[in-house]
Amino acid sequence: MTLPDFSSFLPLLHACADAGGAEILKRWRKAGFEDKPDLTPVTAADREAEKAIRALLEETRPRDGIWGEEFGRRNPDAEFCWVIDPVDGTKAFLRGMPVFVTLIGLLHRGKPVLGVIDQPVLKERWTGGAGVPAMFNGAPARARRCARLEDAVMNTSDPSLVRNPVSAPIEKLGRACTYASCGGDGYVYGLLASGHIDVIADAGLKPHDFAALAPVIAAAGGVACDWRGNPLDAQSAGDVLALGNPALLDEALGYLKS
Amino acid sequence: MTLPDFSSFLPLLHACADAGGAEILKRWRKAGFEDKPDLTPVTAADREAEKAIRALLEETRPRDGIWGEEFGRRNPDAEFCWVIDPVDGTKAFLRGMPVFVTLIGLLHRGKPVLGVIDQPVLKERWTGGAGVPAMFNGAPARARRCARLEDAVMNTSDPSLVRNPVSAPIEKLGRACTYASCGGDGYVYGLLASGHIDVIADAGLKPHDFAALAPVIAAAGGVACDWRGNPLDAQSAGDVLALGNPALLDEALGYLKS
Repeated sequence: MTLPDFSSFLPLLHACADAGGAEILKRWRKAGFEDKPDLTPVTAADREAEKAIRALLEETRPRDGIWGEEFGRRNPDAEFCWVIDPVDGTKAFLRGMPVFVTLIGLLHRGKPVLGVIDQPVLKERWTGGAGVPAMFNGAPARARRCARLEDAVMNTSDPSLVRNPVSAPIEKLGRACTYASCGGDGYVYGLLASGHIDVIADAGLKPHDFAALAPVIAAAGGVACDWRGNPLDAQSAGDVLALGNPALLDEALGYLKS
Repeated sequence: MTLPDFSSFLPLLHACADAGGAEILKRWRKAGFEDKPDLTPVTAADREAEKAIRALLEETRPRDGIWGEEFGRRNPDAEFCWVIDPVDGTKAFLRGMPVFVTLIGLLHRGKPVLGVIDQPVLKERWTGGAGVPAMFNGAPARARRCARLEDAVMNTSDPSLVRNPVSAPIEKLGRACTYASCGGDGYVYGLLASGHIDVIADAGLKPHDFAALAPVIAAAGGVACDWRGNPLDAQSAGDVLALGNPALLDEALGYLKS
């Protein structure tokens, strides 16, 4: 089967990121958030950005699926499905830290094939996918080939993980790297695609997160997979390992498996 | 005793932040770091920024003290002492995250009286001190008066603290607030001075960190003190509590003392 040319979706992907970013910037550093039932925060920026992105997709590609963090699924059986996290890193957003991102990933038959990682305040945007070169603000993005895990700069997400049993393997991997830091959410995956971070391990991500991240990192020469080394797809459990240098995969997986 | 007019030092403080920022930006997102004996990273940006700031101070105020994180002390008994952390958040810097800051504080007879918090990539700068209004990029900065700890947005620094017994009180305070997040180093103190964050608790900060932070936060209407409620000075142990609303001080100290 010949795969579609996913680069043909790039103009729409950029337009979606622009539309979401415009809604976010209207609300940047203005107070106001509320709790969702799971006690995570949500702001008008999350909701209005997702609405703007959905409106554009529904108008342009009415038959495609949409799977958004705030407003759920539409056309779940479509060949193409757009997966949206309008504000990944809402806690950073509401603290006024410009390291949250808008994540939009395209699934083709359940597999992530194209993604955008967008930081609207800094005007930083990564794109890339299957057959689509990784780009950062219009220039090629390449992951760094850190040769040894012991020289690697590592990152993981929210440190509440540290109080959770699932974090023991992340800590183990962190101790094998030279520096392990927390925070940054989806933004740090962009920084990995640009060669500033070598290793990221996160537990319990949702498809809204990794659907956009995995294609960008693969296009930049890195690898993003689950903790068993399997490709990420719509059914993945969400334990994610990303490496700038795929040659370190077996070694890094060893820390996460054991 | 009449105190000097500390606002007369503002032009020099701005010039120092400009000089440090210029050295940092030359090295931003270019690889390269090494370990210090305490196994924390240091980069050429840390060293060159501090050198540039020191050169300016030595030329302009040769009798003043200087106390820099990378190059130590000079004239330790002077009435005025400039305390410098050229890159607070070196781990953020080397990951390419623009949330590190340059911190420069002025001590007068050992007491912090004036400070600058500068983020050169974002061109965000907070200043303020005793008798000197808090400013953010040329506009007045005011901390937020969050009325209840349970509605407060809290922050703490590096989550490696979480594995350290000293972090138990920070966790207790974090559970009393609505959201507790990690990371951001000195940058989050600026965000508190601008009313985006309500509570910050950190353990083991050095004078290089808090000498700049405390005057800015006090000038913005907040409070920064040690975990017993005492003012911060050159002898403080470095366990720091900062609040946007000083009315919450007793309640917050209760969590940190117990």
